[in-house]
Amino acid sequence: MKINRRQFNYGLVLGVGSLSIPWFSSQATLRVDGKRIMDHLFALAEFGKNPQGGVSRVAYSDADKQGREYVLGLMREAKLETQIDAGGNLIGRRRGSATGLKPLLIGSHIDTVPEGGNYDGVVGSMGAIEVAQTLAENNVTTRHPLEVVVFQNEEGGLIGSRAMDGELTERELDLVSRSGKTIREGIKFIGGDPLKLSEARRQKGDIAAYLELHIEQGNVLDNEKIKIGVVEGIVGINWWDVTIEGFANHAGTTAMNNRQDALLAAARFIEAVNRIVTSVPGRQVGTVGRISALPGAPNVIPGKVVLSLEFRDLDAAKIKMLYDRVYAEAQQIASASRTKFEFKEINVNIPAPTDPRIRSLISEAAKELGLSTKLLPSGAGHDAQDMARLGPVGMIFVPSVGGISHSPREFSHPEDIANGANVLLHTLLKLDKT
Amino acid sequence: MKINRRQFNYGLVLGVGSLSIPWFSSQATLRVDGKRIMDHLFALAEFGKNPQGGVSRVAYSDADKQGREYVLGLMREAKLETQIDAGGNLIGRRRGSATGLKPLLIGSHIDTVPEGGNYDGVVGSMGAIEVAQTLAENNVTTRHPLEVVVFQNEEGGLIGSRAMDGELTERELDLVSRSGKTIREGIKFIGGDPLKLSEARRQKGDIAAYLELHIEQGNVLDNEKIKIGVVEGIVGINWWDVTIEGFANHAGTTAMNNRQDALLAAARFIEAVNRIVTSVPGRQVGTVGRISALPGAPNVIPGKVVLSLEFRDLDAAKIKMLYDRVYAEAQQIASASRTKFEFKEINVNIPAPTDPRIRSLISEAAKELGLSTKLLPSGAGHDAQDMARLGPVGMIFVPSVGGISHSPREFSHPEDIANGANVLLHTLLKLDKT
Repeated sequence: MKINRRQFNYGLVLGVGSLSIPWFSSQATLRVDGKRIMDHLFALAEFGKNPQGGVSRVAYSDADKQGREYVLGLMREAKLETQIDAGGNLIGRRRGSATGLKPLLIGSHIDTVPEGGNYDGVVGSMGAIEVAQTLAENNVTTRHPLEVVVFQNEEGGLIGSRAMDGELTERELDLVSRSGKTIREGIKFIGGDPLKLSEARRQKGDIAAYLELHIEQGNVLDNEKIKIGVVEGIVGINWWDVTIEGFANHAGTTAMNNRQDALLAAARFIEAVNRIVTSVPGRQVGTVGRISALPGAPNVIPGKVVLSLEFRDLDAAKIKMLYDRVYAEAQQIASASRTKFEFKEINVNIPAPTDPRIRSLISEAAKELGLSTKLLPSGAGHDAQDMARLGPVGMIFVPSVGGISHSPREFSHPEDIANGANVLLHTLLKLDKT
Repeated sequence: MKINRRQFNYGLVLGVGSLSIPWFSSQATLRVDGKRIMDHLFALAEFGKNPQGGVSRVAYSDADKQGREYVLGLMREAKLETQIDAGGNLIGRRRGSATGLKPLLIGSHIDTVPEGGNYDGVVGSMGAIEVAQTLAENNVTTRHPLEVVVFQNEEGGLIGSRAMDGELTERELDLVSRSGKTIREGIKFIGGDPLKLSEARRQKGDIAAYLELHIEQGNVLDNEKIKIGVVEGIVGINWWDVTIEGFANHAGTTAMNNRQDALLAAARFIEAVNRIVTSVPGRQVGTVGRISALPGAPNVIPGKVVLSLEFRDLDAAKIKMLYDRVYAEAQQIASASRTKFEFKEINVNIPAPTDPRIRSLISEAAKELGLSTKLLPSGAGHDAQDMARLGPVGMIFVPSVGGISHSPREFSHPEDIANGANVLLHTLLKLDKT
């Protein structure tokens, strides 16, 4: 069912039980059905399943579309009123008991990278639907309206959440996504309407809060045997393309001391990036993930190298400091190797801190459930970072075994997933009371 | 005209002047026509000319075929009897005055790399034809038969000379060359006959000697203002592909101390190759010219890198020593970075020393012409290295400005080219007397 959000009326639900005191105090004993989450997770894993394990459910693929149909069915089972917004996001709504309150949003995504796993995004999506179903089955109605949101194309650049907060540009709509379709075509394909994106758009203050459950994708919780990660914020990501110009020449006839080897300069640069990033305390990361050397023949000294440089940290000032040091060292490498470095800024995501009050509520909920917690940053981007433009956000992490993600080997224990969903449920209930 | 080499009869030429004493002593004053060499060089430069400078006359291209037609015309003007052998090499023959002597070969190639220059190969080819024309115009007949050979597809792996010494394999004939044609198709295209390669084949002892004039392609002569390089030998070339296995993981969520970054290991390896090669005296070179990092995204830690490693030196034992040191250091890098290195030998060209007697004759000829000389290795491969399997070889280098080659910026001064051709002429005449 597709309805226009603007016409959707958050009315008061007049349920008898929702006002009785005994019911209210029993909320503390509410628990999600962990087995049901796993059943849904495994059922969803069939859409885009790879024979060698894991899943390729790239946004706008047939598998993505089919998986989304399955998710709409789960939302209906959870008694949610479903909609595909103009941005292509799946939304399942539940009315609140109070009037005039903004909705509380919970959710994640179900699209994956190519050759991805079954937990990234899926745990949070299935967890959010399970929370809604648990509320429905226990006749619990929150004061605020509740929206379970499964954002579309998170892996391809937070497209769904950026449609919702108005950050998605016209130019981006024409970029070709991993599915082979442009984003514009993809949005149409999954039931959105790229011509009416303004209808999906929300303004700052339109949401009471957004909560997202997710696998950590790192190994901090797994290593330290901590059950729940309370996310401090989503790191800022700065990405540059660095071009190194040397001089391509014959590898046999050009003496070692007469070379302007762009790849040798690149090697020194890559080493410097690692050394500088690890030379200061903190959880910042720096990565050279992509490199090309031209002309690229075994018998020709590389005359040109292009590589990517990426820094991530919760503190934008620290990223700036790392960049300044790396830039300065690049100039030294350039002068020693008679090459030239050029830095081109490709993308900047500013750090998105989570709401301190929500962090406290997550910790409190975990504590009441007997679960250990740790405050940690999210090194990966999430839809929560765009929702932070609309209202306060919180994120709950559960352990990823070995810290592996974006891989068929990605895995989280069912018990940890159930814990995470229970923390999500009780954080939501606590938030609803404020 | 295409004739079968086996049917070609090197008979005695009964010229009156060729036996007179005054003519014989006048040989010392013979000089090539330097302007004519340059006219031919510039005319040839039209075939495959690039608008931005230089030339792309890749073997088996239309430009290559047209350039070869032009060269056959020059050979005929020089009174040479022309043939395309079954291997596709252009041969211009001139009978000798004595019976039973094996031919003296002089030549080079005219094919170029893509976006190449107008001197590599061309100087030696035009120089050799000029030597023949000078002999013809001055009615000088050598005792040995003379063959001017323009080898086909030197740049694509010494294909023509390897057809001549029987090193070209059936498997190679099916490899696709830079022209897009297989080598087999290419040989047919330029007038050879891949089914009759045995007819082009020569045996050890079939040639009296092979002399090649070539640009240095390095900067030794240019830097030291030396006019003639006497080539000690053609370096051995060992090429390995090195695969580095790490573990691809999320660049945002994987802490710096939890990474198995194959590109960081590769960077340390590239630095080590350079450091080891430059740590011992000598003219050896070591190059990493090609690299690929997978999966190759800015936000993923590279899990696998494949790179090329190439060493060149006149001394095979030194190459072995360098390889052993680099291999040992790779093991240290692997253990420090929790990666794995694997070395796969792709190609080995053993060093090909030139003939000491011919080296002396080249020095002598240069000295008589008032030209300074220097003994130096050829860092590049040349057809001479395969001719060395058939008989004694010698190579004459002329300065390359700035040491640039395989580039539109490749350049040698006309005066130096004429000097080189005169040294070729007089080395040939000296050889002919022995």
